[in-house]
Amino acid sequence: MERTCGNGTLRLSDAGKQVSLIGWVARRRNLGSLVFIDLRDRSGLVQIVFDETIADKVKDVRSEYILEVKGTVQARKDANPKMETGEIEVHAEDVKIINSAMTPPITIADDTDTLEDTRLKYRYLDLRRSVLQKNMILRHKVCMIARNTLDAEGFVEIETPILARSTPEGARDYLVPSRIYNGKFWALPQSPQIYKQLLMIGGMERYFQIARCFRDEDLRADRQPEFTQIDIEMSFVEENDVFAVVEKLMHDIFKGTKGVELEEHFVRIPWAECMKKYGTDKPDLRYGNEIHDISGLFTNTEFQVFRTVLDNKGEVDAIKFEGAAGKYSRKGLDQLQEFIRSGFKAKALAYLKMEKGELSGSIAKVLSEAEKAAVIAEMDMHDDDLVLVVADKPSVARASLGALRVRLARELGLIPEGNIYKFLWVTDFPMFEYSEEDERWVAAHHPFTAPKAEDVDKLFTDPEHVSSRAYDLVLNGYELLSGSIRIHDQDLQEKVFEAIGLTMDQAREKFGFFLDAFKYGTPPHGGVGIGLERLVMVLAGTENIRDVVAFPTTNSSLDLMSDAPNVVDKRQLDILGIEISKK
Amino acid sequence: MERTCGNGTLRLSDAGKQVSLIGWVARRRNLGSLVFIDLRDRSGLVQIVFDETIADKVKDVRSEYILEVKGTVQARKDANPKMETGEIEVHAEDVKIINSAMTPPITIADDTDTLEDTRLKYRYLDLRRSVLQKNMILRHKVCMIARNTLDAEGFVEIETPILARSTPEGARDYLVPSRIYNGKFWALPQSPQIYKQLLMIGGMERYFQIARCFRDEDLRADRQPEFTQIDIEMSFVEENDVFAVVEKLMHDIFKGTKGVELEEHFVRIPWAECMKKYGTDKPDLRYGNEIHDISGLFTNTEFQVFRTVLDNKGEVDAIKFEGAAGKYSRKGLDQLQEFIRSGFKAKALAYLKMEKGELSGSIAKVLSEAEKAAVIAEMDMHDDDLVLVVADKPSVARASLGALRVRLARELGLIPEGNIYKFLWVTDFPMFEYSEEDERWVAAHHPFTAPKAEDVDKLFTDPEHVSSRAYDLVLNGYELLSGSIRIHDQDLQEKVFEAIGLTMDQAREKFGFFLDAFKYGTPPHGGVGIGLERLVMVLAGTENIRDVVAFPTTNSSLDLMSDAPNVVDKRQLDILGIEISKK
Repeated sequence: MERTCGNGTLRLSDAGKQVSLIGWVARRRNLGSLVFIDLRDRSGLVQIVFDETIADKVKDVRSEYILEVKGTVQARKDANPKMETGEIEVHAEDVKIINSAMTPPITIADDTDTLEDTRLKYRYLDLRRSVLQKNMILRHKVCMIARNTLDAEGFVEIETPILARSTPEGARDYLVPSRIYNGKFWALPQSPQIYKQLLMIGGMERYFQIARCFRDEDLRADRQPEFTQIDIEMSFVEENDVFAVVEKLMHDIFKGTKGVELEEHFVRIPWAECMKKYGTDKPDLRYGNEIHDISGLFTNTEFQVFRTVLDNKGEVDAIKFEGAAGKYSRKGLDQLQEFIRSGFKAKALAYLKMEKGELSGSIAKVLSEAEKAAVIAEMDMHDDDLVLVVADKPSVARASLGALRVRLARELGLIPEGNIYKFLWVTDFPMFEYSEEDERWVAAHHPFTAPKAEDVDKLFTDPEHVSSRAYDLVLNGYELLSGSIRIHDQDLQEKVFEAIGLTMDQAREKFGFFLDAFKYGTPPHGGVGIGLERLVMVLAGTENIRDVVAFPTTNSSLDLMSDAPNVVDKRQLDILGIEISKK
Repeated sequence: MERTCGNGTLRLSDAGKQVSLIGWVARRRNLGSLVFIDLRDRSGLVQIVFDETIADKVKDVRSEYILEVKGTVQARKDANPKMETGEIEVHAEDVKIINSAMTPPITIADDTDTLEDTRLKYRYLDLRRSVLQKNMILRHKVCMIARNTLDAEGFVEIETPILARSTPEGARDYLVPSRIYNGKFWALPQSPQIYKQLLMIGGMERYFQIARCFRDEDLRADRQPEFTQIDIEMSFVEENDVFAVVEKLMHDIFKGTKGVELEEHFVRIPWAECMKKYGTDKPDLRYGNEIHDISGLFTNTEFQVFRTVLDNKGEVDAIKFEGAAGKYSRKGLDQLQEFIRSGFKAKALAYLKMEKGELSGSIAKVLSEAEKAAVIAEMDMHDDDLVLVVADKPSVARASLGALRVRLARELGLIPEGNIYKFLWVTDFPMFEYSEEDERWVAAHHPFTAPKAEDVDKLFTDPEHVSSRAYDLVLNGYELLSGSIRIHDQDLQEKVFEAIGLTMDQAREKFGFFLDAFKYGTPPHGGVGIGLERLVMVLAGTENIRDVVAFPTTNSSLDLMSDAPNVVDKRQLDILGIEISKK
């Protein structure tokens, strides 16, 4: 089949050229004896004109037929500014019908109004929409750039197994029954974590993999049962070395896909400071509106509510929205209060408004003049500013104001338009978190994360305040990756297991072969796992993960196209030595 | 950690330089007050000398300890030509022990004599061997080149699901029980075949993926339960277009990894001719020794054995080995006969030797002088030539001589040394093969392969002689890839299903959603799947697939390192709604 160029690439400068095109019929109109067909391929659309000498050949042609057209490019009398090829059309001189098509069950256009479930069932038709094709190409480009950058930096891509060992706690593992060893199972890996650490022990020094990962969880809108991670691990490094590689990677990806030059180094904030300032470990830095701990203004307050909170190790936190005083009525503020009560168990939301030099609002009357003056100074309040205040347990106060910060930024339009990308390293995450369910301290990241050297002696005495060498990279409010410097010392590894309540026997049962590996000369190492779908979503400007996955499942983990998972033949189960439990 | 260069990169021209190195202790020797340590990293080995001023710091250092060394490069008095860095050594001025190591349970050296099972158990140590590291880097390079070449050719890499739909005949599928939909299963794909065809239907036009595939079969030496395929599919193409892309890919890969310029276009042989000439569809063309059908010489033979074979639609085939007459004694030839009797059910092996102008051998006495003269002429026999002859059913005669061709090429050293790469396209494979087990014709490739247009009318009347548009690429006797032009016409697809004995109902049950997709404007398309491991094995010069896989299983499908597959917790099975069958 002859083809001189892509349909969407033709421009006015091509006028007069003879072309051979191939594509799908996107739209067909008759105008007197003329037939106009928009012909679509991966590069875009072009209008073809069939005059009366040839119109008969396309009289039966309908949407989604495939045509091969020879013709001449000519300027259009009435240019269509909405089409990239809108200044020209192709005058058909010959046409061949390559294949016919039934009427498609979905509307194949960027602004389709077909329900998502129908589009998922006919995904192969949905993929003909230009917006999805562009997302697939974007995802491909991101991977190409990532690979070329990492290759240039001395990283080797190594494929690790997908048929792997199940870990005893792996309720989240997808299992694969073994046919050869009936009664035994493989598990699909949640990440290549253990393998990549073994590759460091194996002396590969710089590894990466764009790796498929699997997590059997009840899906959220931005999750899929399988997802892809740009997985990186390096030996003989500390945080700065890892950050430098990731920053280089992001520079190249954002430059290559969006033409955006990112700042040379990304901001870094220790986790504790981040939580205080933004009430979240993934703040959106495209706007300010930091949380202020104004507890110090109320050391001697007579306002009983604040008094009680402060006496019970709570704090008084505040956040300011400039010029927003008039935009939230009493009712609107009540809704905000309800939002943090139901979402974060906050007791109440207080607020102050500055209007014509006067402070009003729910607590204006109960604060002393000195306190009010102090708040105005501390929060740098001017006319029309709104300050929201939560006095509560520190975690509740911060989380509540952090969520209000995000909500009001949207409502007030504080998020700048366009390609603004604010990266942020959040460092020094806590080593442990307390599991109410298990009634013990568990690893916040994973138990192979190194604690900070200066906190090692607190492992048993004060686990709550042990910081780790774990870090996240946050972009515009989304967690793009997490990673850590790992433990490379067997003694320290055993101590950390002990700190999370594992005996050596239990540790061996869970991670035996991996622990063994540590004995034979393990290099200091660390790395990251970057969520590929999340990264492409940010670049594509979509919040729907299915927009960046070729064949996604629904939120309830169904493949509507192939109708999977499905029932299989009993013989298949017999071979595997398993049966379906009776209800 | 400071590091100025890789250990294996230092050369005589670096003498006098101050360097900081990191690596594992490969070997340690004491010589009087001096200590010599070979320090290994991914780039190679270098010898470090610790003189009496510093030797004490490394007195406890043993194999596989990790050291950080600062020192000065100096020329060696006694250069070691076996080491790439053998002309220099590094005089240590400072040393720090980064980590200690227990004595490793395997010998970490290229010429290790440790049993493979032990090496697999300690794969993370085995990977420290330079030969394995080089193979991993080679595999990475092959993938990098493949991706960059395909990207430049307009291909888009698209990830297709690993959690996919099980096909009803899929006894070879790995199954994954669904937790959300108890009693239903996902299957791991044997290849992305259906997805990539759907992507063509979806208008992606040029797709590739370096894709993980899964096949649950009883393993052979060159198979693994999971393997990787460079998977390619293109729309609006015929064979020549696919071949051009694959040839470009091979040019770039062999140039980029071996520095070898391959011939511009690879030889093509139709399957039927290939089977006649070489007795196999994957001949090694690094040597000649083609099979000759010499039946025509015996049209009127009085030699009863040949007479009977020819009367029963058999043929007399012969193959010549120059100068080999003296190399096979009567006993050696008996072994060859036993080899084809047991392996191919051949009735007998006849032979002729030319010695001092005289023809001798097992059938020299029973052939007429005219027949002997004809054989000498046909086979172009000269002194010391050996001709092996098999008279049998064509398939048996060809396969027997094809196998002898391979065996004698090895025994006689006919395979040229060095980087000789002989590619061959085998085309026009049969569309169907008869399944004795199912007592019907089945698809030889897969049922989506297009039959040759001129053979379509034989689909029902003469299925045995329908050629398909399937092709293989063979390299040095190995099948590197197979592929085909696919059916894109729904009517033809239905006919092919009918020809293999499927009713439309059965076809729908097996491939329903895929058949539906064909209705909405399917482009002509075709592609290939290239076995990545096989390609890297050829480039690495190994016949052991485990040499090119980071974490392989044994031939009996066990991961000896992590001890997988393994028994899982009953609670995990309960969640999945399955149980292990009682024996």
